[in-house]
Amino acid sequence: MTKDFYTATEERRSIYGISKEVVVTDEKIKEVIEHAVKYTPSSFNSQSTRVVLLLGKHHDKLWDIAKEALRKIVPADQFSATEDKINSFKSGYGTVLFFEDSAIIQGLQEQFSLYKDNFPVWAQQSSGMHQYAIWTSLEIEGLGASLQHYNELIEADVKNEWKIPNNWKLIAQMPFGNPTAKPDEKQFSPLEERIKIFK
Amino acid sequence: MTKDFYTATEERRSIYGISKEVVVTDEKIKEVIEHAVKYTPSSFNSQSTRVVLLLGKHHDKLWDIAKEALRKIVPADQFSATEDKINSFKSGYGTVLFFEDSAIIQGLQEQFSLYKDNFPVWAQQSSGMHQYAIWTSLEIEGLGASLQHYNELIEADVKNEWKIPNNWKLIAQMPFGNPTAKPDEKQFSPLEERIKIFK
Repeated sequence: MTKDFYTATEERRSIYGISKEVVVTDEKIKEVIEHAVKYTPSSFNSQSTRVVLLLGKHHDKLWDIAKEALRKIVPADQFSATEDKINSFKSGYGTVLFFEDSAIIQGLQEQFSLYKDNFPVWAQQSSGMHQYAIWTSLEIEGLGASLQHYNELIEADVKNEWKIPNNWKLIAQMPFGNPTAKPDEKQFSPLEERIKIFK
Repeated sequence: MTKDFYTATEERRSIYGISKEVVVTDEKIKEVIEHAVKYTPSSFNSQSTRVVLLLGKHHDKLWDIAKEALRKIVPADQFSATEDKINSFKSGYGTVLFFEDSAIIQGLQEQFSLYKDNFPVWAQQSSGMHQYAIWTSLEIEGLGASLQHYNELIEADVKNEWKIPNNWKLIAQMPFGNPTAKPDEKQFSPLEERIKIFK
């Protein structure tokens, strides 16, 4: 599929109603993720972003891991709402996990000590760019996605389950699937409070 | 102008050779920045990103501020190279300044204390998304841009010069102009080291 940049970025939304009945091929999903990871920038071209795509039983397993981790900390009488939420993500077709390779960031800190404090911040910005590129790409391919952050809660189990290198730091989870419900209308703050122009 | 999302994100590069002879109107530049600020996501739809567009003498003034700040800290015998670099940004047509509104981030931290440590990180990710959206938009409109970080060095003078609210934290500067030189060939790390797929 293809879509004009402005249209695609406008139509990308957080989609919470998702199912496993997708019309796009796994090969296409892989291709658009590869495109985003290849062309999204990073400071000093460090290319520190890492992506894991979980499909099928791996996707289901991820959300089972999250559910069990939450069961340990959410009060029993509130767990039903939590379980529903996790099940809504599990209802999707796959999940993109975003990591940053801390070994690369540390290497830059040692090599360019003047910018030591900046590299972790720039890595977060670059991770955001990757999240945005993949989110929009999934939208273009007819999928609905949202961005979740169960990082600390699931990171150890995720690394153990899929043998993820220990220096990959988990940043975000993006469950996606066939969109089954339209998003709510979005509220916008006035642009004139957010943009200043001097000419 | 319009461009397919995948083409636009592929063609967006760091462009260091820029001039003031642009063919796009100020109105169009304003329009694509407004589009990006309106539609780029933020955690909890907090819309904490702030953008300042400097054109004409304001753009020139920004890089004069940076030059004078650098003159104070760069050894005199090395200043010539620094000055050349700053002049290359000043040769452009305008600069986009990216800020995050720390008052909004603090408000979220107070309201949702469970995620207190996360809001500043998510704000950096959202800033990265805005940088990426605007960078790609400028590329689509035929402009060349790069991302610079003279934050701490110039923030006080920038706020003073353009009466920027004190709670706006400076994150990045994006000088842009008519592209006068092609970027170098980009080096890519192997994608198979950066993406894992489980299905």
